[in-house]
Formats: sequence, C-alpha cells, structure tokens
Amino acid sequence: MTGELLLPLRIYIEDTDAGRIVYHANYLKYFERARTEFMRAHGFGKGYIFSADMMFVVHSLSTEFLKPACLDDEVIATARIIKLGSASITFEQQLRRGEELLCRGEVCIACVDKQRMRAQRIPVEVMKTLSASI
Amino acid sequence: MTGELLLPLRIYIEDTDAGRIVYHANYLKYFERARTEFMRAHGFGKGYIFSADMMFVVHSLSTEFLKPACLDDEVIATARIIKLGSASITFEQQLRRGEELLCRGEVCIACVDKQRMRAQRIPVEVMKTLSASI
Amino acid sequence: MTGELLLPLRIYIEDTDAGRIVYHANYLKYFERARTEFMRAHGFGKGYIFSADMMFVVHSLSTEFLKPACLDDEVIATARIIKLGSASITFEQQLRRGEELLCRGEVCIACVDKQRMRAQRIPVEVMKTLSASI
Amino acid sequence: MTGELLLPLRIYIEDTDAGRIVYHANYLKYFERARTEFMRAHGFGKGYIFSADMMFVVHSLSTEFLKPACLDDEVIATARIIKLGSASITFEQQLRRGEELLCRGEVCIACVDKQRMRAQRIPVEVMKTLSASI
Repeated sequence: MTGELLLPLRIYIEDTDAGRIVYHANYLKYFERARTEFMRAHGFGKGYIFSADMMFVVHSLSTEFLKPACLDDEVIATARIIKLGSASITFEQQLRRGEELLCRGEVCIACVDKQRMRAQRIPVEVMKTLSASI
Repeated sequence: MTGELLLPLRIYIEDTDAGRIVYHANYLKYFERARTEFMRAHGFGKGYIFSADMMFVVHSLSTEFLKPACLDDEVIATARIIKLGSASITFEQQLRRGEELLCRGEVCIACVDKQRMRAQRIPVEVMKTLSASI
Repeated sequence: MTGELLLPLRIYIEDTDAGRIVYHANYLKYFERARTEFMRAHGFGKGYIFSADMMFVVHSLSTEFLKPACLDDEVIATARIIKLGSASITFEQQLRRGEELLCRGEVCIACVDKQRMRAQRIPVEVMKTLSASI
Repeated sequence: MTGELLLPLRIYIEDTDAGRIVYHANYLKYFERARTEFMRAHGFGKGYIFSADMMFVVHSLSTEFLKPACLDDEVIATARIIKLGSASITFEQQLRRGEELLCRGEVCIACVDKQRMRAQRIPVEVMKTLSASI
C-alpha cells in the first residue's frame, strides 16, 4: 500500500448541528475512522489497537477548519504518516470534498501500556510495516 | 430516596442537528444519565454497572417524541422503576421542560454475565434496595 | 427499487462504550442512516428531508437489542416501510451481522410543518413513490 | 465575572469508548460546553451564538491529552480568553479532575457572516464585555 489512505464518507444528520454544518468535534471521528482503516490496510486490525498489553491513544492534535462540511456531502477522510517515533506515530489528515480541502489536522498517537497508561515502544512488526509506508 | 430521580440538564450545540432541534438519539443519552444517577442515588455506582462478572445492558426500549427540545433549553430527565424482574429492570423515563413533557419512554435493562452476555439474576442487595424504591 | 434498503457499515471506536460493545443509542444512528439512504434511493435526498416548509422528524420508536455489535464488526443496517399513513411513515429496521440479527426496531416518522412542528400531509409525489415500495 | 469559567461535569457511559476511557473527540464537547457557559455568563446566550446574520464557529484548535478521564469521574471543564482579535476569540481550556490536569487545549473561534461563512468583525458590545474579562 502507498502512503495515503482515502476513506469515502457520507455526512448524515447525526453529524450536523444547529448551525446547519458538521459539528466540529465530528471531524475528529472521521480522522479516526481513516487512521483505523490505514492501520487495517497495513495488517493491523482490532487486535493491535486493543491488544493484551498495549493500546494506541491520541496524545495530541491540532486542526484547522477551513470550510464547513454539510448534510449529505460526500467527503473523503485521509490519513498518512508524517513522523514515526519509537513510541508515537504522527498522522497528517484531511477532509476533502472533491477538490476542496475542508479541514486538515495533525494527530499524534502514542503507544501506551494498558495498565499504567505509560508510553511504551511500538512493537517491532508495526514499526517495520509503517516505516515502509512513509 | 423516593421513587423518581430528576436530573437537570442543559441542551448544548453538540445535542442538536441541522433540523435545529435535539437529535432524536440523544434523548436516549439523557435517559441513561438519569438511570445512572438513579442507581448512584441508591448506592450503586460504577462498581455495580461494570462489576467483575455482571453488567447491566439495555434490552429494549420504546420512546415517543412529543415536542422538540432546542438549543439552550433547561430540561429535566427523569427515571423511576415501574417493573422489577429477577433479571431485568424497567424504567419509565421522561424529558420535561418546565411543565411540558417533551419525550417519554420505557427502557428495559437486563442483567447479564459479562463473558457470555446471557441473562443472570440481579444481585440480592440490588433487588432489595430497588424494590423499596417502587 | 425493491422494498428493503441494505446499508453496510463498519463499527468504529467512536461507536463503542466502556462495556466494550456498541453504545445502545448509536443503533438509532445506524437506523437513521439507512432511512436516509432509503429515501435517497427513492429520489428524495436532502431537499425533501429539510425542504422550505416541511420536515420529517422521528415521532416514536421501539427497539430490541438482541446481541451486541462490537468494535470492527461489519454490519448491515436495513430499512423498509411497513406502514404508510397520510402524515407518517413507519419503518421496520434491523442491524445484522451476517446471518445474526443484532437489533430490530420500528421507527415512526412524522411529516411536520417547519414553523409550528405540527403534523401535515406527506407530499403527493413522496406518497406515490413510497407506496410503490411496500 | 472574572476571567475563568469553571463547569463541573460528570463522565457518563456515552462519553467512553472500548478503551475504557473517554473518547478523545468528546473532550472537545466539554470544551464547547464551557465556552458556551462562559459566553452566557457574560450575557451572550443563544441569541448571540446564532443571531440573524452572524455565527461563531470553531476556526482551529490544538489539544494535548495528558491523562485519561474515566467513567463516573467528576471533572471540571474551564474556559478563559487568552487572545481577542477583531474577528476571532482564542480560548485556553482545560479538563481537570481535582488537582490533576487531564487535557488542555487552545480553541480559536471565528465570527462569520451566516450566508457566506466569511470572517466578520465581532459586534462592539461583545468586544467590550469580553475584553474586560481578560
């Protein structure tokens, strides 16, 4: 698989708010769906996201909301890795409607041990596969 | 504690949809918050809802949406038990805005064992306390 | 189009709760996505759901939760009309995982005028098309 | 009112995910509730957030997730203005559990005209009141 995952999505009523546009926090859900599909496309499904001893959690993020997505829009959520640390993965993510960029963000995911929620090294097989995707 | 729990809530932008009213599925969230506070008021907090071996899950529900709740509304979610079975609890629930009834529902909660998700008897101490609330 | 719409969905982390299963209110979101696609498949997209003078809103519903949907599950949400009144539409809806029925519900949608939120007749062209789908 | 608004919140099951902690996007909901209460405390309720011609929308944000919030936690969401531009307001926001800082973020809100979603000057009376809060 090449570097960028593209996930087509439809905007439903549940996604909107009284401003008649998508509620801002919901963009983060689209980004997470795209990261999940990115990991799955690289062979790391549910088993890796919630394995026995480790877990991937969102560590930090930044987002710019450029144009609003609206009810019924067909959009594309994207995910690609821009930085791979020993215990963290940084994704660049976008929400696009055709040629228009609606929202972009960077999301840093940390690998933590499940008991104490402390940073731990990303498993070797994940590192190997993901570093080949950059 | 008497039979009915009253939980005051404020409607925020996250709760609304592009129809400018509260998104219908969100009423179920308010109902669950009220049930959680009902259980807590009777001495059964987090420990009981997710104990080592059993879990309470929603088994079935019915709801009528009478009038819409809107942004900024101050509403009251209510919970009271109307039926107590050996493995299930049925709540009558309302969402009110002042004197107006906006939504009413009945929600049946089942006690299940966590591994197989099969019905199991409600623990004796829960039965004792809850039956006194009816 | 025949009577039943089938919408394939993936369960993401956003859909789950601390019980490790899909949060009960989220099934209603899947049902609404399926109804929206049902209406779109019959030619009634966004324009009809939020037209200038009328709006479709959920009037009442009942649901049974038979088996839990879990993270990463691939499921099918369905929608088909079982009753068509002059001002309301009743859908039978299911969530299935392969052959398993996870959840079923009946959802009654009312046609209301936007200003006063009072029941009004469903537009003739909608009636004609939908009645052919039953 | 002094500069920082504190909004007490309870974490409910709807807020959590299968990782048994609060789903990351939900922190943004808590932040928005705190900003809404901040605006209301300064005299700007629903009328100002969705007035006839202008609307406040989230323009950009950054967040760090330091420690997870969990089911049943009692937390405090905070909002205070750290920068006031002619068409934007930047809030510093926190989620705290007692003395612990769980999450902090900066959220930049833009004032836009409702029709074209273009930046416009914040109304004078809002500017006057908010600048006194810094």
